[in-house]
Amino acid sequence: MSVHPISSFDVPDFEGLPTDIRERIEAVREKTGFVPNVFLALARRPDEFRAFFAYYDALMAREGELSKAEKEMIVVATSAANQCAYCVVAHGALLRLFSKNPLLGDQVAVNYRKADLTPRQRAMLDAALKLARAPEAFGQEDIEGLLAHGFSREDVWDIGAITALFALSNRVAQMTDMRPNEEFYSLGRMPR
Amino acid sequence: MSVHPISSFDVPDFEGLPTDIRERIEAVREKTGFVPNVFLALARRPDEFRAFFAYYDALMAREGELSKAEKEMIVVATSAANQCAYCVVAHGALLRLFSKNPLLGDQVAVNYRKADLTPRQRAMLDAALKLARAPEAFGQEDIEGLLAHGFSREDVWDIGAITALFALSNRVAQMTDMRPNEEFYSLGRMPR
Amino acid sequence: MSVHPISSFDVPDFEGLPTDIRERIEAVREKTGFVPNVFLALARRPDEFRAFFAYYDALMAREGELSKAEKEMIVVATSAANQCAYCVVAHGALLRLFSKNPLLGDQVAVNYRKADLTPRQRAMLDAALKLARAPEAFGQEDIEGLLAHGFSREDVWDIGAITALFALSNRVAQMTDMRPNEEFYSLGRMPR
Amino acid sequence: MSVHPISSFDVPDFEGLPTDIRERIEAVREKTGFVPNVFLALARRPDEFRAFFAYYDALMAREGELSKAEKEMIVVATSAANQCAYCVVAHGALLRLFSKNPLLGDQVAVNYRKADLTPRQRAMLDAALKLARAPEAFGQEDIEGLLAHGFSREDVWDIGAITALFALSNRVAQMTDMRPNEEFYSLGRMPR
Amino acid sequence: MSVHPISSFDVPDFEGLPTDIRERIEAVREKTGFVPNVFLALARRPDEFRAFFAYYDALMAREGELSKAEKEMIVVATSAANQCAYCVVAHGALLRLFSKNPLLGDQVAVNYRKADLTPRQRAMLDAALKLARAPEAFGQEDIEGLLAHGFSREDVWDIGAITALFALSNRVAQMTDMRPNEEFYSLGRMPR
Amino acid sequence: MSVHPISSFDVPDFEGLPTDIRERIEAVREKTGFVPNVFLALARRPDEFRAFFAYYDALMAREGELSKAEKEMIVVATSAANQCAYCVVAHGALLRLFSKNPLLGDQVAVNYRKADLTPRQRAMLDAALKLARAPEAFGQEDIEGLLAHGFSREDVWDIGAITALFALSNRVAQMTDMRPNEEFYSLGRMPR
Repeated sequence: MSVHPISSFDVPDFEGLPTDIRERIEAVREKTGFVPNVFLALARRPDEFRAFFAYYDALMAREGELSKAEKEMIVVATSAANQCAYCVVAHGALLRLFSKNPLLGDQVAVNYRKADLTPRQRAMLDAALKLARAPEAFGQEDIEGLLAHGFSREDVWDIGAITALFALSNRVAQMTDMRPNEEFYSLGRMPR
Repeated sequence: MSVHPISSFDVPDFEGLPTDIRERIEAVREKTGFVPNVFLALARRPDEFRAFFAYYDALMAREGELSKAEKEMIVVATSAANQCAYCVVAHGALLRLFSKNPLLGDQVAVNYRKADLTPRQRAMLDAALKLARAPEAFGQEDIEGLLAHGFSREDVWDIGAITALFALSNRVAQMTDMRPNEEFYSLGRMPR
Repeated sequence: MSVHPISSFDVPDFEGLPTDIRERIEAVREKTGFVPNVFLALARRPDEFRAFFAYYDALMAREGELSKAEKEMIVVATSAANQCAYCVVAHGALLRLFSKNPLLGDQVAVNYRKADLTPRQRAMLDAALKLARAPEAFGQEDIEGLLAHGFSREDVWDIGAITALFALSNRVAQMTDMRPNEEFYSLGRMPR
Repeated sequence: MSVHPISSFDVPDFEGLPTDIRERIEAVREKTGFVPNVFLALARRPDEFRAFFAYYDALMAREGELSKAEKEMIVVATSAANQCAYCVVAHGALLRLFSKNPLLGDQVAVNYRKADLTPRQRAMLDAALKLARAPEAFGQEDIEGLLAHGFSREDVWDIGAITALFALSNRVAQMTDMRPNEEFYSLGRMPR
Repeated sequence: MSVHPISSFDVPDFEGLPTDIRERIEAVREKTGFVPNVFLALARRPDEFRAFFAYYDALMAREGELSKAEKEMIVVATSAANQCAYCVVAHGALLRLFSKNPLLGDQVAVNYRKADLTPRQRAMLDAALKLARAPEAFGQEDIEGLLAHGFSREDVWDIGAITALFALSNRVAQMTDMRPNEEFYSLGRMPR
Repeated sequence: MSVHPISSFDVPDFEGLPTDIRERIEAVREKTGFVPNVFLALARRPDEFRAFFAYYDALMAREGELSKAEKEMIVVATSAANQCAYCVVAHGALLRLFSKNPLLGDQVAVNYRKADLTPRQRAMLDAALKLARAPEAFGQEDIEGLLAHGFSREDVWDIGAITALFALSNRVAQMTDMRPNEEFYSLGRMPR
């Protein structure tokens, strides 16, 4: 177990948390085998915790045309531009798992322009990065660029909204110095 | 009434919306006298609508030490840096109303460093702007700067989390070309 | 009347000013109903005052193909990029008045890319913004872009020279912490 | 004589110019031995020509505490940041002449932080560069920094106003592709 | 084996390489168990290959006060800022190996400000990053900052020169689209 | 002779240098008439000295399709962007000499976009500047742009590798505050 705190803000005792939050955390522990630190770091503000994970579920668990791996590409690439340690490490692991490609997490984190992506995925990330880092310049021409690559308008919304949610998430993680669980660093990597 | 669409994405018919969303919209119409376009633009994705306004309420309606006007300063200053038309115009109006200062909305929107603020408010916005525009560089020293100005750790969380929520909101508004209601432009201005 | 000084540099007594400067100030007071602070803030250096307003008149009062509203769009958009409180507030008012559009001042100030402009006006502001913020990169291809939108070479000169004059003006206003008159905030807004 | 045009805009025949402009040009030709291209490039708009040189004289010929060389340092350093070919080459020559230092023009143009300057001159250029390139961030703390280095408030105005005038001048030169006279390249250099 | 080319430039046959280059490559293969792609990608220009590795050895194998892990921190942090896929992946592995810390490679790559480093190492990377990304602003004050953290002048040279060498290396890797060997992704990671 | 040190690091006595380094320095003194300071500033680390000049010779003395003047254009333009005093002044002189154009050194240093270059040379410098200042964004499309201007793949390598070598050189010069010899300022200028 790490001697580093998982957040620079205090983390509440699990036992004192509201029932719904404890249940959510137990569910993720059962599924994943450990509790990702974001659940513990956000639990000190139950209403914000509930809103965050409701937003997360609404976008990341939504059935649409973007694959789970593609959604994680957006998360990893935009979080890398914001240099968000928690999001890059945790979602890099998810990207490896969902893509079944042990290299893709690091590739997208370091420089998505050089990653093993399709031109369509590259266009998706170009738009996401623009919205993430220069939202003032994002415009209808960027949306038309996505449509030209075969994305539907619902896909465009997903791409933009996931980018927006992690613009929020990156800033909360940065504000709290949120620390990724050690498990995430090696999840989904190739056997040595 | 404007001939410009309020969003570049389709806006659902009010009648077809889920009950809870219709009720929320009716409540704001009664209180404000008109329906801010953000409610209509987000309603096409009910789960995201619910999550967004739950997050919004959790932060903006929360009882804490930041005044309502100070919260709006954060929204206006960070949204101005992101050049978000909807958020600057709508929340500029709220800032005028809550501060009872008809000049403050425009002052903070154009250059918060020149606005009629206290040094403590200036420090609050310096930190918010750094988190908004250069999250990668935000660190514990910025939090300590806020504490030195008399903010509590809960205030720091509020400042950071409001900044984070509008990082999300600005990007959704930019993606949808969300148009501010004309009413917002003149709300809370001084009599001529 | 504001308790805030209109400039961080001393402002001379009106009575002690040279006759031509007093006359210019009286003329604007009669026409506008108040004396815009820029006249008082610059009067401490009579030769620079004369040169500034001569330049201003030469460009802003010049008969050409750009409308008065279009000239103000250039001023507001470039001054907003430089976050010049005086110029955005004062010329935002003029833009509302000349365009007879009570929304346009704020729209162009917040994000001209989202304002209710024609494609030709958008192209005009794209070029002006490039010259204002990245003059090193402005080149003949930008001029050709303007010509392709139907601007004449004299229009191009006007666009560039107005941008250049407010590059000067923004910096003088920023250096002096020049404060916009309260009257400007509400001039030309729609009745409530 | 150069085969390159001195401006991308048309340059009027000397004979057709208004008398006062011809006289000004003749005077500079007599004093300098050649006509700097800026006089010819600006003459097509006589009112702007007069205003520009009135402003120039008001600042550059003003008796104050800044030396002529120090004024040219401001021009060269800020014009170099804007990559203005005309202003760097022409005023680099003036800086060599006024400072009697054949190296200083190039030193300040390439990187003023490494030039042979006093700490006071370095502080002057730090402030000028901030106003030139990031006017939105220039504030009273920058003025106080200058006062702490022994500059008077009138000096501060001169530093800021010269920076502002060349913010204008750099943009006009960039817009017109104004070409420096070949004479400027070698003026004031050391004998070989 | 990867189906992706290791460089966008042609890679020479091993057999046709000059003897000294073949020997160098054989030596690294014996030691490491595989041939890092940088050796193959650079071999097409033998003189540049020799110069590059001579520079590399002179700095990275030099006995000094910086530990091997600290040298790799500089490489990983500056290469991450330049988004150099090859250097981040390959030297991230070396950082894990030399530091015996399976997390440090990713931590430094994503955001060195949040990595588990000493204040002295943080200061070292702050200076290296400034030299890497804003060399124009690097000055004696940065060197004095390093000396104040207990670095010797020889350490300062090492920090700066390693930064400089990877400024070169990152650009060659970017130009050639140099692909990291798959082995590097998992080297030195913790057992799962 | 200058009273300014040529480096902020100590410069070794010529007599104590290894024989090969003394010979190299003597050779350049004979050819050039003086010893460029870079030789003295780097000599304190003989292995790095040898590697640097081996790399330099491999690229700058290589027979290829780029002319000697074109290679110097790359050096001057990228070094100017990094504001490297030594490299701009020394290689500006070489550019004047090799191009037999006494204006070109200053033109390329101030703003290569306005220099008297062919479109092909302009494209070469656009690519070099991108690799120098934004290596993360340099990609295959930039290489294809160069090929479209008639450059061979070996030329592309030369352009990129010279840019990379001076990315290194600029940073070493900046770190050491390396001072250009006074002779370089006037070499190759036109007779007055």
